[in-house]
Amino acid sequence: MTDYDYIKDGNAIYEKSFAIIRAEAELGRFSEDEADVAVRMIHACGLVEAAEHIVFSPGFVAAGRAALKAGAPIFCDAEMVARGVTAARLPAKNEVICTLRDPRTPELAAEIGNSRSAAAIRLWLERLAGSVVAIGNAPTALFYLLELLRDGAPKPAVILGMPVGFVGAMESKQALAENSYGVPFAIVRGRMGGSAMTAAALNSLARAGL
Amino acid sequence: MTDYDYIKDGNAIYEKSFAIIRAEAELGRFSEDEADVAVRMIHACGLVEAAEHIVFSPGFVAAGRAALKAGAPIFCDAEMVARGVTAARLPAKNEVICTLRDPRTPELAAEIGNSRSAAAIRLWLERLAGSVVAIGNAPTALFYLLELLRDGAPKPAVILGMPVGFVGAMESKQALAENSYGVPFAIVRGRMGGSAMTAAALNSLARAGL
Repeated sequence: MTDYDYIKDGNAIYEKSFAIIRAEAELGRFSEDEADVAVRMIHACGLVEAAEHIVFSPGFVAAGRAALKAGAPIFCDAEMVARGVTAARLPAKNEVICTLRDPRTPELAAEIGNSRSAAAIRLWLERLAGSVVAIGNAPTALFYLLELLRDGAPKPAVILGMPVGFVGAMESKQALAENSYGVPFAIVRGRMGGSAMTAAALNSLARAGL
Repeated sequence: MTDYDYIKDGNAIYEKSFAIIRAEAELGRFSEDEADVAVRMIHACGLVEAAEHIVFSPGFVAAGRAALKAGAPIFCDAEMVARGVTAARLPAKNEVICTLRDPRTPELAAEIGNSRSAAAIRLWLERLAGSVVAIGNAPTALFYLLELLRDGAPKPAVILGMPVGFVGAMESKQALAENSYGVPFAIVRGRMGGSAMTAAALNSLARAGL
């Protein structure tokens, strides 16, 4: 009979995980608050090397925390991002919204000649001002958000720009970093990113500390 | 005014992504079917290097596909895994089940002295035989599943063992690879894994091809 020896207590696992990440990851260029967010993002992907690709614009963490405390809605490009948000950590019972499966989205996609992920953003416009935007899947969504901001759309409080993948992910995050239209942002440079890292960053913004 | 130049068609993005992955990733040690699954998993994490950590036991893909075609339920340890499954790809309207937030789970966790992720598995037992089990988050869930199998629990058709992280993830996947109690499995060795890679593997099993 095999005996399996493992830590069974969730909190103990978290604590040990965060200690390992802090010991192994290069976090020196982050502020204390930024490091907390980065540690959670690394925890979500299992790679301490991710630290070198994470970029926060000045004021991102403070702006994100303030928006959530003020009750800002969280707009997500993918259901998996929305599902990864821990409701119990949110400071103001913030709404977590994904409009990808809204019945209006396919028609909007045809209208704008873009993906459904991009079209879904059109349904955020009324409440975009001051919101927390989390893009963890689709480069087209991030590019389209930038086009809307360029054309004068209301500004979110912060943008988490973390689409993952091989076509457009790197480029869309680069474009956000080059011009975020005055909105504080966080990105993961290159191909990495995804729903788990994005949700982890949101959960970290939602409540200070680990 | 910045012009953003990017591919807006979802299918074109998929095709180009898969072509890049096939060109860059080391897929030579996989069968054709296994390579399809691996390509989707790499797509989900953005890292071609993941290929070297993916392991399929003999017969995994065939057993997983047959189970899904026969209508097997899919048991997931985390909501994010369940949410990542594309219902439209499933061959038999398979149920996708996550019992983590079942009201009985906290009490069961106290009873067995383990995490809620582990306790949630107790609620799978009646339908575990022949099912598709997907563990993409919690090492405790995978360890506990192995304990149940050791003690004579009904055998799933396949196990996707892909918890991510720094404490127990590597060890739980190693334990599965050492003795899966006769159940075909897929793992991602080491710290990598997670809900997106797990859901991608499920989606690939659900329908042959990319």
